[in-house]
Amino acid sequence: MTPQRWQNLLLAVRKMPGVGPKMAERIALFLMRSDETDNIVRAIQEAREHLHRCSLCGSYTEEDPCFRCADPGRNRSQLCVVEEIADLDALERSGAFNGLYHLLGGVLSPLDGIGPRQLRIEPLVERLKSSDPLIKEVILATNPTVEGEATATYLAQIIQPLGKKITRLAYGLPSGLALEYADELTLSRAYEGRKEVR
Amino acid sequence: MTPQRWQNLLLAVRKMPGVGPKMAERIALFLMRSDETDNIVRAIQEAREHLHRCSLCGSYTEEDPCFRCADPGRNRSQLCVVEEIADLDALERSGAFNGLYHLLGGVLSPLDGIGPRQLRIEPLVERLKSSDPLIKEVILATNPTVEGEATATYLAQIIQPLGKKITRLAYGLPSGLALEYADELTLSRAYEGRKEVR
Repeated sequence: MTPQRWQNLLLAVRKMPGVGPKMAERIALFLMRSDETDNIVRAIQEAREHLHRCSLCGSYTEEDPCFRCADPGRNRSQLCVVEEIADLDALERSGAFNGLYHLLGGVLSPLDGIGPRQLRIEPLVERLKSSDPLIKEVILATNPTVEGEATATYLAQIIQPLGKKITRLAYGLPSGLALEYADELTLSRAYEGRKEVR
Repeated sequence: MTPQRWQNLLLAVRKMPGVGPKMAERIALFLMRSDETDNIVRAIQEAREHLHRCSLCGSYTEEDPCFRCADPGRNRSQLCVVEEIADLDALERSGAFNGLYHLLGGVLSPLDGIGPRQLRIEPLVERLKSSDPLIKEVILATNPTVEGEATATYLAQIIQPLGKKITRLAYGLPSGLALEYADELTLSRAYEGRKEVR
């Protein structure tokens, strides 16, 4: 008997990651009452319409390539492979790295149906083979989790034949802590202590 | 240098209650990637367009009055005043109460700029004076918090001259726990043990 559209709103809000039933109710109420709702909807629609993945690094951008990939000031001999934008942001905040990035868009997770084809691994290989010949070192900066490690191992095997130096961020990172939550110093040390994959 | 529309999206998502910077990033990524985003936006827009406050109780509804206010099976001699929809839902789940509701839309909170005029207090008085002459008892079911108590005291003073019985939910409720989190039994006992305000 509760209005269908109210139920729909609650269900829709609950689809967002990390939102449980109580929080969904608070957010739904906020969306019904707030003057900001139109702005929020517009921000979502504009982002969906105008932002797309950079064809090189895979981060969201309005131009292609994105400002980082197009920046002549960055070190084009190093490519840092991360899972998602949050990880890239964390590394940028640490100031330790000034090379290029490659976003996978996630990690290998067979139980969730995420295999190599669901990630940006093919574009990575293409990039290393031809598009970015200056790249000498590939830094595998997936998270220090089971899936992140498995993904790094898989990537190392695939990249090995291409003759690039392959490194992994050092275990300055406390194991199990997601990369995006690490502090700047921990990330800097992890970058400094990176080790070659053999 | 980060794309403006990505920043806008993050800021927009952070406006929602309970969403911090990390969660905003996860939700923004989800909204960019998910097939559900159009459905979520549509649910928000449809809710905003078609749902409005019931002119009697103040809950969100497509018809006016809402299905509860229009239900001949409910006890029209009791009116339960609650802060928001979540509280009404909790009372309904407890099964203890079968009367009418009145939603305030919040509590008095002078520091946040919420005074009597920001709440549905005038409609409550109007309703008790004329529209719902059958109401014999007003149950003040604001939350057992400082603001909830202050609001109940304020309402009791205003309603007193109208000659209705005024009650407050009993302190079966553990103090400081928001009403929407109370279990059904606690709520039932609080309803059974309600006391007249003198």
